[in-house]
Amino acid sequence: VSDSAAETGNGAGRLEQQLGFILEVDKLKSVLRQTRLVDGSRRENDAEHSWEVAMMAVVLAEHAGAPIDLARVVRMLLIHDIVEIDAGDTFIYDEGARKTQVEREEQAAERELWAEFEDLKTAESRFATAMDRLQPLLHNYHSGGAIWSKHGLDYGRVTERNEIIARGSPTLWAYAQQVLKRAVGEGLLPE
Amino acid sequence: VSDSAAETGNGAGRLEQQLGFILEVDKLKSVLRQTRLVDGSRRENDAEHSWEVAMMAVVLAEHAGAPIDLARVVRMLLIHDIVEIDAGDTFIYDEGARKTQVEREEQAAERELWAEFEDLKTAESRFATAMDRLQPLLHNYHSGGAIWSKHGLDYGRVTERNEIIARGSPTLWAYAQQVLKRAVGEGLLPE
Repeated sequence: VSDSAAETGNGAGRLEQQLGFILEVDKLKSVLRQTRLVDGSRRENDAEHSWEVAMMAVVLAEHAGAPIDLARVVRMLLIHDIVEIDAGDTFIYDEGARKTQVEREEQAAERELWAEFEDLKTAESRFATAMDRLQPLLHNYHSGGAIWSKHGLDYGRVTERNEIIARGSPTLWAYAQQVLKRAVGEGLLPE
Repeated sequence: VSDSAAETGNGAGRLEQQLGFILEVDKLKSVLRQTRLVDGSRRENDAEHSWEVAMMAVVLAEHAGAPIDLARVVRMLLIHDIVEIDAGDTFIYDEGARKTQVEREEQAAERELWAEFEDLKTAESRFATAMDRLQPLLHNYHSGGAIWSKHGLDYGRVTERNEIIARGSPTLWAYAQQVLKRAVGEGLLPE
């Protein structure tokens, strides 16, 4: 496909633009998180985290506190962190200045999902958020609580920061509280 | 939840086992692939790859050669590589010897999806496979073709190895062929 065809938004151009989006979000693999792998060996990145929370949603769907459209939750979790990509001078969701190959239409569809995720107004966004919060909590526990001590957090603070999990899944929040109590019992988290 | 409850397979035990599965597959983040990131900076791992192909399926679904259940394709792609986890002495799908916390029931559901992926008998598995093959092809092109030259591959061999993409999406295979021709034109791939 010629460059001019790619710019017209016709069939072939649309595909080029969709793939441009995919190539652009590859940068998520270079955005490091505080969370360490379960084995504690290194910090994980946003792409790895996004894969894991999407997988968690599939495996844990039955524990959602309300009926959910699982496919929507998974799509939401796959893209929920792309807002963290700093595309050099502009932000991936900064429509004004952006002049890259990322297709506006594709961007708009994903931005809509991202806005839903942030709003917490739907059962899907509340369950997605529960996955997004439960995942680092589990990793912090299994990798020895280093992040908690690094940030001087105690049981009360970690509880307060994560009780939003209950809005997506009371069952998983009850479980998370047990994990935190275990962490206190094992000296990984101050009481 | 007590250890004995976790072993009985009741409600709380089931959750422990589902989370055991999630913690186990975290090892996918440590399985390196030949493929490099789009920016060429390093090799990617199976978790990053799985995230990207799942995302590709969502973005490129309209190009599937036959009607597909997109949610099934995405689930398939999220788990398609867990067979590559070498759990020390046993294989994640080696039922006989395995004595870990990974829940057999969960494992069975995921294994069924994995078997479908491998069989290529459904439209979903053919589209999933197209994503799985198109992704490294695009990365190899954008990161300068180093893998192709490392393995002494030429246009004919790369075409032969990837024409399976056509079974999932004739449109994406036509696009992939254009990319390979571009690679030849740019001296990244011998003719």
